[in-house]
Amino acid sequence: MMKIGIAVLLLSSVCCAQSPDGFQPASTNVWGAEYPRVDAGGRAEFRVKAPDATQVQVDFWGNPKLAMVKQSDGFWTATSAPLVPGFHYYSLVIDGVAVSDPGSHTFFGGGKDASAIEIPEAGSTYYLPQDVPHGGVREVWYFSKVTGSWRHALVYTPPNYDTQSRERYPVLYLQHGGGEDETGWIKQGHANFILDNLIAEKTSKPMIIVMAYGYAKPAGHPLSDSTGKPFGSPDMMKAMQEMSAAFEADVTQALIPYIDANFRTIADRDHRAMAGLSMGGMQTFQVTFDHLDLFSYIGGFSGAGGMSMMRGEEKLDMKTAFNGALADPAAFAKRVHLLWIGVGTEEPARMHDGIEKFHTALTDANVKHIFYESPGTSHEWQTWRRDLKDFAPRLFQAAGH
Amino acid sequence: MMKIGIAVLLLSSVCCAQSPDGFQPASTNVWGAEYPRVDAGGRAEFRVKAPDATQVQVDFWGNPKLAMVKQSDGFWTATSAPLVPGFHYYSLVIDGVAVSDPGSHTFFGGGKDASAIEIPEAGSTYYLPQDVPHGGVREVWYFSKVTGSWRHALVYTPPNYDTQSRERYPVLYLQHGGGEDETGWIKQGHANFILDNLIAEKTSKPMIIVMAYGYAKPAGHPLSDSTGKPFGSPDMMKAMQEMSAAFEADVTQALIPYIDANFRTIADRDHRAMAGLSMGGMQTFQVTFDHLDLFSYIGGFSGAGGMSMMRGEEKLDMKTAFNGALADPAAFAKRVHLLWIGVGTEEPARMHDGIEKFHTALTDANVKHIFYESPGTSHEWQTWRRDLKDFAPRLFQAAGH
Repeated sequence: MMKIGIAVLLLSSVCCAQSPDGFQPASTNVWGAEYPRVDAGGRAEFRVKAPDATQVQVDFWGNPKLAMVKQSDGFWTATSAPLVPGFHYYSLVIDGVAVSDPGSHTFFGGGKDASAIEIPEAGSTYYLPQDVPHGGVREVWYFSKVTGSWRHALVYTPPNYDTQSRERYPVLYLQHGGGEDETGWIKQGHANFILDNLIAEKTSKPMIIVMAYGYAKPAGHPLSDSTGKPFGSPDMMKAMQEMSAAFEADVTQALIPYIDANFRTIADRDHRAMAGLSMGGMQTFQVTFDHLDLFSYIGGFSGAGGMSMMRGEEKLDMKTAFNGALADPAAFAKRVHLLWIGVGTEEPARMHDGIEKFHTALTDANVKHIFYESPGTSHEWQTWRRDLKDFAPRLFQAAGH
Repeated sequence: MMKIGIAVLLLSSVCCAQSPDGFQPASTNVWGAEYPRVDAGGRAEFRVKAPDATQVQVDFWGNPKLAMVKQSDGFWTATSAPLVPGFHYYSLVIDGVAVSDPGSHTFFGGGKDASAIEIPEAGSTYYLPQDVPHGGVREVWYFSKVTGSWRHALVYTPPNYDTQSRERYPVLYLQHGGGEDETGWIKQGHANFILDNLIAEKTSKPMIIVMAYGYAKPAGHPLSDSTGKPFGSPDMMKAMQEMSAAFEADVTQALIPYIDANFRTIADRDHRAMAGLSMGGMQTFQVTFDHLDLFSYIGGFSGAGGMSMMRGEEKLDMKTAFNGALADPAAFAKRVHLLWIGVGTEEPARMHDGIEKFHTALTDANVKHIFYESPGTSHEWQTWRRDLKDFAPRLFQAAGH
């Protein structure tokens, strides 16, 4: 029932030995873990001890899986082809069971604490800690009457937030994707380092970033049961709509009041933004377009706006879409200081093309917006890091603020 | 290479269905995971899909392992005997490979991100979030010239830290155990909730708590290579001493100055405490006794002080132990406001008896101290939660402060 960890600690004290073939332990590894390893070309080496297993694979959450080969010492090993730079979730599949790699830290994605490997991007330091003033990241707990529960959120405060104690700041609400949670933008995305670096070079205004937990159940009401129902079925859509509604109510009735009461915010719509990735992008569009009295900057990363297109519709009805907010493009541009959408060029066609069509529809309707494509990246964190790097500098720049 | 997590999210939206036999999903589970489950008697049910595996077990990091039984649907299940209340690490062992349970969140312990299950303790709410003012937990990064690297720490700030912006606070440095990291006292230990509750009932003074990363390598010097060397061997002890020395230098030369510069501390020895569990307790004794100019409150949870006893020595040489600080008990009691040691009654005999002997030696030498035994708990977090609950109220109470 117990374990004294000293032995583990000591055994792992010889970290990071140089490999003769140029492979280094990944930055996502736990202290002392030699594997997985990465080389300068983006190849990754995996290794796990499983003497009694009959099949072991590396699964990058797609196909095909990378077969590992059993060595005489009971370890299984494999080397990948060069991987796209950035952050990749993966699992080890041991005799058919997908599990985490003990050598990797875990990151909440796919509904579980999952392994991941960071492939460095040559020349990119914008999401790494640099010798610049650093902001802080705070864990907060707030009680939500909407959900009837304590909820956990992370809050980035810009450098010198504590010492410049008369200063007030605008706020970006920034949401994770489906299957992820409120820790994603820090642990996977490095949003804090991205903002530290942008603020240091005076590209972004100092701001507070709030990262909330994107799931919600209304107090006293279980969500509709969609167990075993197929994706997109009416039961499933009903459960999702109930959750979306509860999340929207939580953000607007519990979270924003909590943040404005507990942080030195500028608590008006001109100084409040929301963005999110994938599911978080769709939530962003729902929350912001329902509450343009609260928000004036809107960002959808790899998700928002493209849904109707992804369902096969070829045109947006600008008169009715988004509560009719886009019906008068001139009025919209005056009211909403930024509408920003982005997608990676290598995302699945359904996702990429849906968002591109949404961009085209906005353009055709003369709705002012920014469309950003991340070259060479898929539905992954490198896309969203780049999104934030492009998006954040455009925030809170409207004349007069 | 990608996965859109929406399906996962929706499939997991039917959380927490009531089980007819009184089992409920554990509080340590990920969103929507039905297993593991716990009943009011402390029994735990485990379930994992592994149709192609030939043997699956639950390993509570000890022996014997709990055998899981394969069901006709490819799931393996098992129900444990009643478990001691508290937080228990565990692994699933699939065909001989110890892995995390996808249904559980992970917690850094044993040198990896590991599964754990929380068994509620009837009537104990002191480590749970209550309807009281909550402090915050901040992530900070500081550059350490000692290690030549950015280092991550967590900092608890007491309720109203932000609004009472002229107030200054004493500081407790609180360390994790071997194989764990700086996240342990929050994620596993709930130190923030423990302090929130103690402060709300005015049992503890409001204080800042700093939780640092307990491993350190001196800049430019790899640790001695102890790969493959047996536990306790000279090579291993050398590597450990090098790390301890680097950690001590990091705390005293980098971390404390950073904290005092960036938080509203009372930066003197009368308002600075240090405590730690297991390895962290030993580090605490090393750092504090080497720097009594910096610390006046000392706590060792399940580790500190007992090491010489555990090595078979029957007596402490009070003239030389701890740099001779205990040689004059009256002077020591005047200089050190609190020396606190604790251990669980069910810890391994070597650990429990070593610390008890240390307590006896201190008593025989008239060294003022507190000795606390946690009834019924082992070398686990329930012991250390109780330790903190007893220890924190004794801090910063010395006359004149």
